[in-house]
Amino acid sequence: MHGFPLLVDQHCHGVLRSGPDRGTFESYLTEAQVPPPPGVSFFDTQLGFAVRRWCAPVLGLEPHCPPREYLDRRAELGTPETTRRLLRASGISTFLVDTGLPGNLLTPGELAETSGGEAHEIVRLERLAERAADTARDTHSFLAELSDGIREAVRTARGFKSVIAYRYGLHFEPHPPSTSEIYTAADRWLGSRVPGGRLSDPVLLRHLLWTAVRTGLPLQLHTGFGDPDLRLDRCDPLLLTDFVRATASYGTPLVLLHCYPYHRGAGYLAAVFPHVYVDFGLTLSHTGARAGQVLAEFLELTPFGKLLFSTDAYGLPELYVVGTQLFREALTTLTDTWTAAEAWSPEDVPRVTAMIAAETATRLYGLT
Amino acid sequence: MHGFPLLVDQHCHGVLRSGPDRGTFESYLTEAQVPPPPGVSFFDTQLGFAVRRWCAPVLGLEPHCPPREYLDRRAELGTPETTRRLLRASGISTFLVDTGLPGNLLTPGELAETSGGEAHEIVRLERLAERAADTARDTHSFLAELSDGIREAVRTARGFKSVIAYRYGLHFEPHPPSTSEIYTAADRWLGSRVPGGRLSDPVLLRHLLWTAVRTGLPLQLHTGFGDPDLRLDRCDPLLLTDFVRATASYGTPLVLLHCYPYHRGAGYLAAVFPHVYVDFGLTLSHTGARAGQVLAEFLELTPFGKLLFSTDAYGLPELYVVGTQLFREALTTLTDTWTAAEAWSPEDVPRVTAMIAAETATRLYGLT
Amino acid sequence: MHGFPLLVDQHCHGVLRSGPDRGTFESYLTEAQVPPPPGVSFFDTQLGFAVRRWCAPVLGLEPHCPPREYLDRRAELGTPETTRRLLRASGISTFLVDTGLPGNLLTPGELAETSGGEAHEIVRLERLAERAADTARDTHSFLAELSDGIREAVRTARGFKSVIAYRYGLHFEPHPPSTSEIYTAADRWLGSRVPGGRLSDPVLLRHLLWTAVRTGLPLQLHTGFGDPDLRLDRCDPLLLTDFVRATASYGTPLVLLHCYPYHRGAGYLAAVFPHVYVDFGLTLSHTGARAGQVLAEFLELTPFGKLLFSTDAYGLPELYVVGTQLFREALTTLTDTWTAAEAWSPEDVPRVTAMIAAETATRLYGLT
Repeated sequence: MHGFPLLVDQHCHGVLRSGPDRGTFESYLTEAQVPPPPGVSFFDTQLGFAVRRWCAPVLGLEPHCPPREYLDRRAELGTPETTRRLLRASGISTFLVDTGLPGNLLTPGELAETSGGEAHEIVRLERLAERAADTARDTHSFLAELSDGIREAVRTARGFKSVIAYRYGLHFEPHPPSTSEIYTAADRWLGSRVPGGRLSDPVLLRHLLWTAVRTGLPLQLHTGFGDPDLRLDRCDPLLLTDFVRATASYGTPLVLLHCYPYHRGAGYLAAVFPHVYVDFGLTLSHTGARAGQVLAEFLELTPFGKLLFSTDAYGLPELYVVGTQLFREALTTLTDTWTAAEAWSPEDVPRVTAMIAAETATRLYGLT
Repeated sequence: MHGFPLLVDQHCHGVLRSGPDRGTFESYLTEAQVPPPPGVSFFDTQLGFAVRRWCAPVLGLEPHCPPREYLDRRAELGTPETTRRLLRASGISTFLVDTGLPGNLLTPGELAETSGGEAHEIVRLERLAERAADTARDTHSFLAELSDGIREAVRTARGFKSVIAYRYGLHFEPHPPSTSEIYTAADRWLGSRVPGGRLSDPVLLRHLLWTAVRTGLPLQLHTGFGDPDLRLDRCDPLLLTDFVRATASYGTPLVLLHCYPYHRGAGYLAAVFPHVYVDFGLTLSHTGARAGQVLAEFLELTPFGKLLFSTDAYGLPELYVVGTQLFREALTTLTDTWTAAEAWSPEDVPRVTAMIAAETATRLYGLT
Repeated sequence: MHGFPLLVDQHCHGVLRSGPDRGTFESYLTEAQVPPPPGVSFFDTQLGFAVRRWCAPVLGLEPHCPPREYLDRRAELGTPETTRRLLRASGISTFLVDTGLPGNLLTPGELAETSGGEAHEIVRLERLAERAADTARDTHSFLAELSDGIREAVRTARGFKSVIAYRYGLHFEPHPPSTSEIYTAADRWLGSRVPGGRLSDPVLLRHLLWTAVRTGLPLQLHTGFGDPDLRLDRCDPLLLTDFVRATASYGTPLVLLHCYPYHRGAGYLAAVFPHVYVDFGLTLSHTGARAGQVLAEFLELTPFGKLLFSTDAYGLPELYVVGTQLFREALTTLTDTWTAAEAWSPEDVPRVTAMIAAETATRLYGLT
């Protein structure tokens, strides 16, 4: 991993400003929303093992020390120092932060300062709509605020993110809704919404997607696995095929996040549609010792200039370290193997590595 | 594989009391129900090669000896001695036997005696219903007998098994049917049923599932590949997602069997829903030389405390030997590789091995 | 790869008679139909790397020389000499050529002559129908010509090919359409068809399939990935399950092409239905350095006597070299690994290799 380039983390979230206490640390190691049953621990997963392996040394401990010892050391150092050490060990120079998740989290600016890197915002479309709904007097002002919010984001953010996969599924009707459909749906939603209520109306979700597509900023789409709110079989990125076709003429980059276990289909979309890109997101972190084989599957059909690194880290700074270390080790091991077998040329390796690590994201998001 | 723990085979069937003759041995090496076309042999499969590799030495032959030689030796030893040798070589201490398959098979008690281990029953729900239908005078007595049969099974068996995947598909309506729906469906089925007819009515199949869930005993569900009676795309365990959600509050363990080629989605369900467990069943036996890579895919998202060993052996005692040897070798090879790469700690290996081999099954099924 | 048998390429297309110029060479390395976006090159893919690796030495260059150097050398040699060298380096003795693709391509006869091998035709059903529609006076004569065309093909060709996956999807109604349905559909299609228009009517597509099945000649079906005209999720071969059942009594071999990323499901179909065969087609070429792992996945459930080699080469003679070299290397590496692990016997390797390379195709297509 000698000479590995600095990384652009093209999809991540903030880390907790304080804590978590021991009892909740484990809950950040899983996409589950409730504790495991007796006899099962979320430390006994590929992600849990990867945290012990890669993060313990950053805090001055032996790799794979027991969870209790790791948490003791974390408490001893305190959250700010733990966060500072882990972020600085990650080798990330630029963070593109989806600010749409809840929690008492560091802002992008604080993340940048703590890590010594820079950070930019990715605006989550559904959160924008929910905020507009929180304050709008009526349907008309809701839609106007939404429109203003998107326009504002174009000035301040680097891209958009949609979680329509969670809120409805990727089998949505691919074409933009009409103005009257939008108005009717907004009326209905605002009329029945309890304060803080989530947006799951498919017409409004599609309206958000299409408004974002028309701005030309990259649009990140959750696909593949995540927490139990989603139905995984409705998160297959191939369900987006007709939407991909419908948006082709705009040229707006569509960035498919995570993808697992449908990452081979995502690679196909990236191979045949110019504006489709693929990101492995939380997939490498959660598959740990298997990250190399899973990354290799992403690299079957995806053109090398269309695959992007990210950690999808959230809450724990450990997830930045795990996401970066697993990626670096996985890619290095793969390219070593492929050059040893003479399937790849050694001269191509740094070039392809640079694309995935930073260059493609730099180009897509207009970073410098 | 030194020091590998004794195994709990949490899903298997009986072995043939006599035979099979040479002509039918091959038919037990496949999920096909008719002979192969000219030029094709079911010995020329990963499972066929694995039988020659692992079973020949148990009968005193060279590994990989030709099928004819193996079958000669088998005939020479006779069925009882062949069965005794193979079962005792398997390293299984406890058998959980689904007694719902046809054939002149050893009972769980005989399996225990022959192997020197112990055996418990898993009751196949559809068989229970079909037996009740064989004897019931009318709809009312059918439903009463069914209910009695389930109550009886709670006293005598360790869990239930459903093959709704075969009989209908996993895309069934997730909620319990109403009493009047059940009554109507039972009426219809009994009225049109020929003696020995299979249950494939989705209302009654769901009634069985929900009756079993309410008992709290572990419920095994066939998912993934099997014989040509099923439509594999309707056996994706993700189709169970809404049923998994609907049953969450009961806490009844749902054990997804086989899963292939949808095992990564099964791992997701086990990762995010506390009551979901995963078993690789016949997958390792049928993928043979590939068992290590396939097992590795199960171990991507599945929490290590939620994966269970089984052989799904049926008919041939060879399938016990193949299922156990492939599992031991696959897991040992994986954990050796992962510890050599420092991705896993050597201290964790026996702990995780013990979970998969026996401990999780021991806890779930209340074994000792 | 010492002693590897000569290959029967059971699914391929012609190569360009002249050119391509530098600008279009790259377009033949992808299933995309438009150029890549800025910063992305189709040379930077597994297929692009494989071409540089395997074809450069055939033209007297260093493996992995830069694309520009390779294309210079190609231009210097000229198309006929380049084609001759690459075809003769491929080790293919027999080409089964689907002649239904457009372009100024070598005929099967020219391919045979240039390569020093032999070539036979596979008739693309949809092309047959489109040609009949180009010349037919009315519906009656269209259907008669179609019927004649199929009868003629039985005399001259070795099999049929269907691209219903592209034109409609594999979720078609499995049973043969009635005569009146066929007549109505033909009427409708011919009435609305613009000259050269493609056939996408599902009734006529099914009529073609069933007419072909009744001849007994092997029927190749596109499944899995391809160009952006298809919806990949509707190309899952498991969607063919009911068609497979409906055609079982005819015994006509159904050969599933490509299959990726649904090749494990294809292997299941081949394992349980006697008349189903599997071919990896363009999958190995497009996955390059990953061809070994992908081939291994085909070899999980597919009986070894039911897997067939092909290149799906089209346009560039390079695709013959890449398809054959990747296959030979992948299979040799796998079998070396499996024999080293004692999972396979060394005696079985040449036998299984011969089946996949040539024997099964020789038997299915009546070659000598």
